[in-house]
Amino acid sequence: MNRNDVTEKIITVKVSKGIQWADVAKKVGLSKEWTTAACLGQMTLDDKQAKVIGKIFGLTAEEQKWLQVVPYKGSLPTPVPTDPLIYRWYEVVSVYGTTIKELIHEEFGDGIMSAIDFSMDIQRQADPKGDRVNVVLSGKFLPYKTY
Amino acid sequence: MNRNDVTEKIITVKVSKGIQWADVAKKVGLSKEWTTAACLGQMTLDDKQAKVIGKIFGLTAEEQKWLQVVPYKGSLPTPVPTDPLIYRWYEVVSVYGTTIKELIHEEFGDGIMSAIDFSMDIQRQADPKGDRVNVVLSGKFLPYKTY
Amino acid sequence: MNRNDVTEKIITVKVSKGIQWADVAKKVGLSKEWTTAACLGQMTLDDKQAKVIGKIFGLTAEEQKWLQVVPYKGSLPTPVPTDPLIYRWYEVVSVYGTTIKELIHEEFGDGIMSAIDFSMDIQRQADPKGDRVNVVLSGKFLPYKTY
Amino acid sequence: MNRNDVTEKIITVKVSKGIQWADVAKKVGLSKEWTTAACLGQMTLDDKQAKVIGKIFGLTAEEQKWLQVVPYKGSLPTPVPTDPLIYRWYEVVSVYGTTIKELIHEEFGDGIMSAIDFSMDIQRQADPKGDRVNVVLSGKFLPYKTY
Amino acid sequence: MNRNDVTEKIITVKVSKGIQWADVAKKVGLSKEWTTAACLGQMTLDDKQAKVIGKIFGLTAEEQKWLQVVPYKGSLPTPVPTDPLIYRWYEVVSVYGTTIKELIHEEFGDGIMSAIDFSMDIQRQADPKGDRVNVVLSGKFLPYKTY
Amino acid sequence: MNRNDVTEKIITVKVSKGIQWADVAKKVGLSKEWTTAACLGQMTLDDKQAKVIGKIFGLTAEEQKWLQVVPYKGSLPTPVPTDPLIYRWYEVVSVYGTTIKELIHEEFGDGIMSAIDFSMDIQRQADPKGDRVNVVLSGKFLPYKTY
Amino acid sequence: MNRNDVTEKIITVKVSKGIQWADVAKKVGLSKEWTTAACLGQMTLDDKQAKVIGKIFGLTAEEQKWLQVVPYKGSLPTPVPTDPLIYRWYEVVSVYGTTIKELIHEEFGDGIMSAIDFSMDIQRQADPKGDRVNVVLSGKFLPYKTY
Amino acid sequence: MNRNDVTEKIITVKVSKGIQWADVAKKVGLSKEWTTAACLGQMTLDDKQAKVIGKIFGLTAEEQKWLQVVPYKGSLPTPVPTDPLIYRWYEVVSVYGTTIKELIHEEFGDGIMSAIDFSMDIQRQADPKGDRVNVVLSGKFLPYKTY
Amino acid sequence: MNRNDVTEKIITVKVSKGIQWADVAKKVGLSKEWTTAACLGQMTLDDKQAKVIGKIFGLTAEEQKWLQVVPYKGSLPTPVPTDPLIYRWYEVVSVYGTTIKELIHEEFGDGIMSAIDFSMDIQRQADPKGDRVNVVLSGKFLPYKTY
Amino acid sequence: MNRNDVTEKIITVKVSKGIQWADVAKKVGLSKEWTTAACLGQMTLDDKQAKVIGKIFGLTAEEQKWLQVVPYKGSLPTPVPTDPLIYRWYEVVSVYGTTIKELIHEEFGDGIMSAIDFSMDIQRQADPKGDRVNVVLSGKFLPYKTY
Repeated sequence: MNRNDVTEKIITVKVSKGIQWADVAKKVGLSKEWTTAACLGQMTLDDKQAKVIGKIFGLTAEEQKWLQVVPYKGSLPTPVPTDPLIYRWYEVVSVYGTTIKELIHEEFGDGIMSAIDFSMDIQRQADPKGDRVNVVLSGKFLPYKTY
Repeated sequence: MNRNDVTEKIITVKVSKGIQWADVAKKVGLSKEWTTAACLGQMTLDDKQAKVIGKIFGLTAEEQKWLQVVPYKGSLPTPVPTDPLIYRWYEVVSVYGTTIKELIHEEFGDGIMSAIDFSMDIQRQADPKGDRVNVVLSGKFLPYKTY
Repeated sequence: MNRNDVTEKIITVKVSKGIQWADVAKKVGLSKEWTTAACLGQMTLDDKQAKVIGKIFGLTAEEQKWLQVVPYKGSLPTPVPTDPLIYRWYEVVSVYGTTIKELIHEEFGDGIMSAIDFSMDIQRQADPKGDRVNVVLSGKFLPYKTY
Repeated sequence: MNRNDVTEKIITVKVSKGIQWADVAKKVGLSKEWTTAACLGQMTLDDKQAKVIGKIFGLTAEEQKWLQVVPYKGSLPTPVPTDPLIYRWYEVVSVYGTTIKELIHEEFGDGIMSAIDFSMDIQRQADPKGDRVNVVLSGKFLPYKTY
Repeated sequence: MNRNDVTEKIITVKVSKGIQWADVAKKVGLSKEWTTAACLGQMTLDDKQAKVIGKIFGLTAEEQKWLQVVPYKGSLPTPVPTDPLIYRWYEVVSVYGTTIKELIHEEFGDGIMSAIDFSMDIQRQADPKGDRVNVVLSGKFLPYKTY
Repeated sequence: MNRNDVTEKIITVKVSKGIQWADVAKKVGLSKEWTTAACLGQMTLDDKQAKVIGKIFGLTAEEQKWLQVVPYKGSLPTPVPTDPLIYRWYEVVSVYGTTIKELIHEEFGDGIMSAIDFSMDIQRQADPKGDRVNVVLSGKFLPYKTY
Repeated sequence: MNRNDVTEKIITVKVSKGIQWADVAKKVGLSKEWTTAACLGQMTLDDKQAKVIGKIFGLTAEEQKWLQVVPYKGSLPTPVPTDPLIYRWYEVVSVYGTTIKELIHEEFGDGIMSAIDFSMDIQRQADPKGDRVNVVLSGKFLPYKTY
Repeated sequence: MNRNDVTEKIITVKVSKGIQWADVAKKVGLSKEWTTAACLGQMTLDDKQAKVIGKIFGLTAEEQKWLQVVPYKGSLPTPVPTDPLIYRWYEVVSVYGTTIKELIHEEFGDGIMSAIDFSMDIQRQADPKGDRVNVVLSGKFLPYKTY
Repeated sequence: MNRNDVTEKIITVKVSKGIQWADVAKKVGLSKEWTTAACLGQMTLDDKQAKVIGKIFGLTAEEQKWLQVVPYKGSLPTPVPTDPLIYRWYEVVSVYGTTIKELIHEEFGDGIMSAIDFSMDIQRQADPKGDRVNVVLSGKFLPYKTY
Repeated sequence: MNRNDVTEKIITVKVSKGIQWADVAKKVGLSKEWTTAACLGQMTLDDKQAKVIGKIFGLTAEEQKWLQVVPYKGSLPTPVPTDPLIYRWYEVVSVYGTTIKELIHEEFGDGIMSAIDFSMDIQRQADPKGDRVNVVLSGKFLPYKTY
């Protein structure tokens, strides 16, 4: 057994029972973004969170233990994603990558926007010309230091 | 001469004159994100915008024409970016890719978040534990349709 | 169980029963292009469509549920396809890619031809020198906007 | 000197003089698709066509000779194109590849749709919900034969 | 079940029964090259041919049906083949590729040698300095046309 | 200066003077296949051959010396060729690779068909249904030996 | 002009004048690791540091400005380095990668060792069996947080 | 059965029993780095070490034999690691690779830092601004020799 | 069943019975290099050799037949090997590749050193500074010929 | 100027003057293998060696300094070499890689054959069936140690 087996079980149960990620998140008491990432094998749960998830998806005690193991992260099967929804995000990085770099450096100097001390919020934004996906990314700025 | 030559000239002038992207954007009258992307060879300017950019960076009439040619887009030299700041964005796509997919589909059904009818806003968010980079991405949801 | 298992079952049943995609499409009431793509795991069916497909291919209730889950899209095992029929399409993109880009931009300006708000129609065109495959692709033009 | 040098010169002259591909095609007396592909270094011109192109773009006699040399074809810098407009075409091949294969084989049996005995026609299709790009691809069906 | 399963069964039976491809071809009544390619999952058999193959290798009715399905072609596990015999052919394409291109274009003009309307004949050629493999490739020339 | 510079000069002179490979081969006194490969930087000439080539293409004494240096072989810019004519050959290796392997081993046992002790002959074969490219490849069989 | 030009000039001057990195570092007043990385185009200097480097290597005012521009980082020409010294470091990541992951997670929980808030110290360690390279890496632990 | 099966069993048992690598190392009597690498299938154990590991993880006699077989090393599924913790190490090699090379050569001349006669020590370093991961790498310097 | 299954069985039996390749080679009556390569699925055995191997490793009659089938050769899972021992050989080809080419051509002219009419002998060479691995490679020189 | 420029100059002079590597080696007083590798930019010369090479190839004082700089090693333009002579060596690593690994481990235990404390000797071996290339590789065995 490994973490991937547990992820697959969670997805299978989700489909057969028609579970919604938003409901799972409410029960865990955290954002839907973090909770979904955790269920998809990208984040590490503590004992209490694992029990909540375990109950929702009918996981065994051993499967719950696997939720508490730090996973080998990276959720995509290829370096350039083939799925159109995910590719659009890759395209944003490809087209705007140097722009993002220039503007963060102009504001903060040399360093990065953390992908660890990081949060993400995805919302529907109503719009008469067609609703929009609104995403807020927040990452701590980490400066390179001299030494 | 090609668009890339013009991009390189813009960057060279920017460094030697100490120009800021935010100031360029103000003169163009558009966001700093779109303006920077245009200067870096990823967006297409109209005649009036090209003149403003041309004046700031001392571009010839022919160079200004190149700013109005639709560029071959993609700003990164490798499929997986090596620059740490840009890599963190790639990492977000890699780690959260399936999560983003699940949550947008849960909210909107099958389709994508457009990277064309799209805008981005990058801001400093003051934080006592260390300032954060706050980014808002807004993309129109485009549904797959049956036919 | 996952979507891929259902796709494989559909193909296996198709071969053993000698089912035609055109007949499946008629029963679903949609084009043969969309219907085939859906059966091959690239599109998402609604409840009613899933029942029709389920009946044709003898799918269980759970398998029908999987047809209603948005799939991770991309139907090819390698970035450059090895199958000669599919490669010829890749070759069209490779040889005519910059031509297509030039002509769409000349007509519409900067933007893309959508692959989401998109339809395809494949027909036999009788020709005394050898019949031809006639394909009509229709995609909404999506302009890049300034912001 | 090589074919690529001539292609670059043609593009440079096109930008500086504001030439349109549609006008070039009219003067050559062929479709805008074939003519543009030829100017972009993907097709081979005969002596008369080369003279017309040479006059439009101010090419020397030697440059006109290069237009008559069969080029090493393939217009994209990477196997998976980074430019969003061209990528959408790649995505169509990726998502619909197996569908296209199934439907052509269902209609014609084993074989391919030729990319050589092939033509393409790109048109604007007015649409109140947003104009569409309409593309007709026509390729001779070439059957695999037993031997 | 899929075509690959049938290919593997054919190979397994061939080894255990010591069957020769040349004998299979005689029974099918076609060349050993086409027949072997078909048995290895690269060509499509008709009903009668499938029955002959089915009898030789003890295939079930369903397995015989799979032989009549057009396969996803491409017989090699990597883009550059590792097997020395097959690599030598790849090397011929790599070293002589531009030569082949020049000479076919010099004789025929722009176009290709078809790999579909194509046949291959592999023979032993006795030679006192060591026998040789003699291969005749025959492919229809397909010219690019203007349109 | 390097071998590649000499190859480019040969090709440039060939285009500007309208030289044919078949004529070059006659003057060298060898096959058009070997002669073209040598001119394209894939084979090594002896002193006498280099003089003949040098005279035809107006090469300096130093350039003639480079023709006598063993070149770093491989004539294609990418592992999978993008040019349609050359790709068809790659496709033959991809689709028929395992077939070629099976049939040579069935006839000769374990070993390879040499790409060094090798010759190639490309001819036009008149055919009422469309002329064909006829290619004869001849390579010495080299057996693996036990030791 | 770009940062890479400045890096190349620094290296050229270093070789022709026989400058040592350790001496450069002393004059800059920082570690030899950070100083060398900065000279090799991987770190950003402030005005004062740029003047010191500029004086040592005879850089113009404009070249000194480039040292203060945040560079596009990544110093290796291929994803898997070919140089044996650098490859051994890649091999450590390849062989010990999962070990490092396990032990840091065992001690700290889920998170990473920062490569930004990071320092490195390389020293010779005398050893009778052959001197050793002793390297100390220090990176802040950054925990993943729930949100 | 192969070494990989044994590695997977060890990891599964570790999770279900909550074993710590540090405790395993104590029982083996070696560093936690070497011991973990060995359990993860990267190092070779002797008979005595295999018995200790076998007892801790409940391995059969045959599984213990596999621990004594030299494994095919390399612990990562992709050349560029996707896991953020391991990627940061890859990034250090990418960003500092040429710096490390310069400084080791400046101190030792041409040669490498061995990844075989090598040890690694990972420790928590308390720090009021956030604890740090402190890693000491020690590798014998191996000089290139003339011959 | 395929050749790979037989290879895996041989390795499994070897580990569980503690068989040495040198002993296998003695019983087969050939070098340890050829014999090991054959057992690892890279060479083809004759009937008598297969029986000897079959007896040593307890192979069935069918498994012995598979040893007599020419395998698809290539023993490594990735183009650039990750295993340190095998990588050092790849590194020799990478660092010394052009040197080997120059020296063989200087001695023999254009051609190759055969990897088919080839043998290898690996021996321990005692050395007070540390024993050495001594390897003798012998390959027939095959000249390119004109034709 | 960089090391690569010096390598190219050496090769150009070698061709124009008809210099032999064996003669260069004699003047340097080292093996032809090491000397050639050094001239091709893979090894580092000391001051005296650089003067000898400088005299033979007419190098300036600055070019001689570059010969004393440790180069970024790796002499091949692609991970899998296209040149047939060099590819055969790659093929030996590919086909015999696991065999070499097994036999060195059987004799020496876990460790590697060094590619740094390494020498190579290439000789012609007369043979009535065709002369052979005889290569002796000698590399120190470096054992993995526990720690």
